[in-house]
Amino acid sequence: MTVDNERALAVGVDFGTLSGRAVVVRVADGAELASAEHAYRHAVMDTVLSAGDGQPLPPDWALQNAEDYVDVLKNAVPEALRRAGADPADVIGIGTDFTASTPLPVRGDGTPLSELPEFTNNPHAYVKLWKHHAAQAQADRITSLAAERREPWLPRFGGMISSEWQFAKGLQLLEEAPEVYAAMDHWVEAADWIVWQLSGTYAPNPCTAGYKGIYQDGRYPSSDYLAALNPDFATFAQEKLPSEIATLGASAGPLTAEAASWTGLPEGIAVAVGNVDAHVTLPAANAVDPGQLTLIMGTSTCHVMNADELREVPGMCGVVDGGVVDGLYGYEAGQSGVGDIFGHFVATGVPRAYAEEAAARGENLHTYLTHLASQQPIGGHGLIALDWHSGNRSVLVDHELSGMIVGQTLATRPEDTYRALLEATAFGTRTIVEAFTDSGLAVQELVVAGGLLKNTFLMQMYADVTGLPLSTIVSEQGPALGSAIHAAVAAGAYPDVRAAGAAMGGRTVGAYTPDPQAHRAYSALYAEYQKLHDYFGRGGNDVMRRLKAIRRQALTADDGGSVDSPELTVPEELT
Amino acid sequence: MTVDNERALAVGVDFGTLSGRAVVVRVADGAELASAEHAYRHAVMDTVLSAGDGQPLPPDWALQNAEDYVDVLKNAVPEALRRAGADPADVIGIGTDFTASTPLPVRGDGTPLSELPEFTNNPHAYVKLWKHHAAQAQADRITSLAAERREPWLPRFGGMISSEWQFAKGLQLLEEAPEVYAAMDHWVEAADWIVWQLSGTYAPNPCTAGYKGIYQDGRYPSSDYLAALNPDFATFAQEKLPSEIATLGASAGPLTAEAASWTGLPEGIAVAVGNVDAHVTLPAANAVDPGQLTLIMGTSTCHVMNADELREVPGMCGVVDGGVVDGLYGYEAGQSGVGDIFGHFVATGVPRAYAEEAAARGENLHTYLTHLASQQPIGGHGLIALDWHSGNRSVLVDHELSGMIVGQTLATRPEDTYRALLEATAFGTRTIVEAFTDSGLAVQELVVAGGLLKNTFLMQMYADVTGLPLSTIVSEQGPALGSAIHAAVAAGAYPDVRAAGAAMGGRTVGAYTPDPQAHRAYSALYAEYQKLHDYFGRGGNDVMRRLKAIRRQALTADDGGSVDSPELTVPEELT
Repeated sequence: MTVDNERALAVGVDFGTLSGRAVVVRVADGAELASAEHAYRHAVMDTVLSAGDGQPLPPDWALQNAEDYVDVLKNAVPEALRRAGADPADVIGIGTDFTASTPLPVRGDGTPLSELPEFTNNPHAYVKLWKHHAAQAQADRITSLAAERREPWLPRFGGMISSEWQFAKGLQLLEEAPEVYAAMDHWVEAADWIVWQLSGTYAPNPCTAGYKGIYQDGRYPSSDYLAALNPDFATFAQEKLPSEIATLGASAGPLTAEAASWTGLPEGIAVAVGNVDAHVTLPAANAVDPGQLTLIMGTSTCHVMNADELREVPGMCGVVDGGVVDGLYGYEAGQSGVGDIFGHFVATGVPRAYAEEAAARGENLHTYLTHLASQQPIGGHGLIALDWHSGNRSVLVDHELSGMIVGQTLATRPEDTYRALLEATAFGTRTIVEAFTDSGLAVQELVVAGGLLKNTFLMQMYADVTGLPLSTIVSEQGPALGSAIHAAVAAGAYPDVRAAGAAMGGRTVGAYTPDPQAHRAYSALYAEYQKLHDYFGRGGNDVMRRLKAIRRQALTADDGGSVDSPELTVPEELT
Repeated sequence: MTVDNERALAVGVDFGTLSGRAVVVRVADGAELASAEHAYRHAVMDTVLSAGDGQPLPPDWALQNAEDYVDVLKNAVPEALRRAGADPADVIGIGTDFTASTPLPVRGDGTPLSELPEFTNNPHAYVKLWKHHAAQAQADRITSLAAERREPWLPRFGGMISSEWQFAKGLQLLEEAPEVYAAMDHWVEAADWIVWQLSGTYAPNPCTAGYKGIYQDGRYPSSDYLAALNPDFATFAQEKLPSEIATLGASAGPLTAEAASWTGLPEGIAVAVGNVDAHVTLPAANAVDPGQLTLIMGTSTCHVMNADELREVPGMCGVVDGGVVDGLYGYEAGQSGVGDIFGHFVATGVPRAYAEEAAARGENLHTYLTHLASQQPIGGHGLIALDWHSGNRSVLVDHELSGMIVGQTLATRPEDTYRALLEATAFGTRTIVEAFTDSGLAVQELVVAGGLLKNTFLMQMYADVTGLPLSTIVSEQGPALGSAIHAAVAAGAYPDVRAAGAAMGGRTVGAYTPDPQAHRAYSALYAEYQKLHDYFGRGGNDVMRRLKAIRRQALTADDGGSVDSPELTVPEELT
């Protein structure tokens, strides 16, 4: 540590899907003194434009309101400082991490277009959250044209560009709302926009640029390629994306007076260059070495691993030189739905008797169902599920996919289905592990961070299904701690992120050990998963895509054989 | 009518899966004066042998206790007479119908082996209910050997012999409990056993013999063939099955004094030859003409249609000359699970908020879910299900198949799944209709009987999915009325079943008319159903079979990687 002050503190702020969370951390050893959370007022806008005129949104849309992010700075940061009993003068830096790819259109001064009166009721003027999946048609064209032209950057992304990323969402913006597209000066990641609000400087981070912005080897896709997608898209990279990229662990600039007044932090302290929630978690778990595959398991799961070598791993979200720490290639993969799927099942698929029994036991339904689900041998429920309710991010990279479950009988119970869904996500992770292994990148250890690590049955299942030892992050605020680590580096307390992670981060090594017998039993089920995975996911039967197309057409048609009006109201309890 | 008594009455008794139901009917016009129901004390024994020592039963078993059937005669018949205010002296005959194939092993005098002290704790000594599906291995051998030897009877059964039928269950009995097999003098259908109790005469009916007992053109499969299955099975037909078959509508004999005392009916009245619940319903609906496909829709659906010609229709349960009425070929097909599947979903898959809202509206969950499910255009839910939770009876004839649903997203609601299950059963019926049509037997009209006809949304869906006009039976007690019609014929009141049906039965012609636009919309979904049907059902992927095998092994193994003990208790509310 090069800051000569044992009382030095750093603040990390993690911007998640539904809320932001601030943590106050001691720079010397990473001790977390206190944290505070602030929910976004408009949460995720996926049915109506609640920040505007309340107009209905089409299927697969997911928007946010940028102002809600600033409210986290104004509320969670001061509250965390207060709870920590910290003297703000001891804080030497602030770092942030964000969901990604979560871009928004802004003016040259950073003002979101959604804040301009002429655009406030235009859904395209808002932040497109990572799980906005309505640009699949654009993503398909981006991928197929790149494949056709053998664009050199395509293999870095596993051969497929996701509808979640900057280019697909940007092309959708151009084609569906050209007036918004024309009015925007920058197509900026929320990860960079929030740093802009703190430091007054647009300092684009290499992580979102590399993984989500197709910025590889110092350049974007060519304007020639972009013009072939759509003539009006030719200048997208040149005009709307940043040309100079900052480095991770650097300071974007000093905290502005305005941001100091929002947060209660000292004006002028270091503001770290932005980062992505998943990637920033690796130093927090002190898991940046090759062979350590870190899983950030929450509503979705991100898989991040460093390696010495550049390989083409099928279905990666991306690989970026120095995307996690300098000197290593950072590989990212992911599962679009994990905890989301369990949550959806608990909200919509569990009968009253279970809710009452769980309440009588003083447990939530997840705990109760996990207990019941564990009371049977592997394979006892006779089910196999596919975990694609939110699409498949790796290795198929297709958000037109959906869920599937097979094997139901009249003896199938809710806990059987719940367990099949847990297993499906474990099989999904094994599919990703095997994609690494088959490409010559050995995986020796799973490192788990995120909310789901508290489910010990699930953790043992992941160890058993993959046959790998599983470690768990020590911090309960992994991403926020990772952001604080970047803040400490930006402030000069450590020479680099790796050194700061070794001092401030940590994991419980080998918290779960795979059971060989269970691994064999799960492998028989995994073979069935693989077969169904390939059938539904690799063109054996494109029924999932067709059902989504039929659904869209049915819900937007004036008629279509409806018995009544096509209203699709979800009861309040399910939203 | 040839009985010169306008007050003449007939009693029909329908033995269902969970209860028996007696109806008192006026012979002149079929007016139903009253009915009464009596539940079987042991219901279906599918988890433990509750009529014996309570030992656990393996998966796929389903037994009943013969004594429970006699209790229906003792309770429901007198109660129906009492409610009707009928003078028992006016009753000229009693007829019965039964689920099938539901065989039991008996001594020469009709005593069930389960009533002998040495066998009372042997599950194999009990009635094997139609939905006992544990003889699939035997059924597979029966089918494959017959196919190999090109046995002439095999095409009559659509090329496949069901595990539900007499031969498969008989071979299972021989191989798993040879001591029970050796001790039995007759392998008798419950349909005939109950007539035996009433008349003192074993008068085997042609319907179960022909459809379930492979009795075709006056003979059973050869002893040569049976010996090839298992040398000890060579004499099965000769020694355990009846050699003389009675005719439908005939009298098995006069009511015995003992049965008269059970029922309160006059000794000596006609007891009609037994019959099967589905088949006896056709005269009750006055739907015995070629082109009228009658669906008896309850927990499962039976499809029965008469035709002038003998054709080989793939996947039929069977075709029997005079199997429904004299002079026509009676074809039977079926779906193993229909109302069962909806009931299972309501019991296990619907959250508390729905139960509360339904209660507040004063509706049961089926009514409420149907209401919600109808509020969307066709294809709006984006789901396709396969309706094989209890296996597939037609056209695949495979009880190792199971359920499947595809297309789930985080927006999928319970009513979406419910509707997908309704649709799956309609698609299953269309598959059967097309099997008839493709074989040259035109289907011009659906005629629906059974409990599900009260769901008007479902009825319209069946009309729309098949594109056929749909009539509904007038009687709410179709099978029991059909049995009363047979009683009237057996007593000589009408010359034959067809004439009696015209006078005593009836249907509402064209109660539902298909909507061409809805038919087109459903046809797009049906194309997806067909593709999945063939993939999972015709060898594209035998995952359903393998999952059942894995499940059986897991639940019977001593270890198998269980986290805890392999207990599979179903909460009380779900049984």
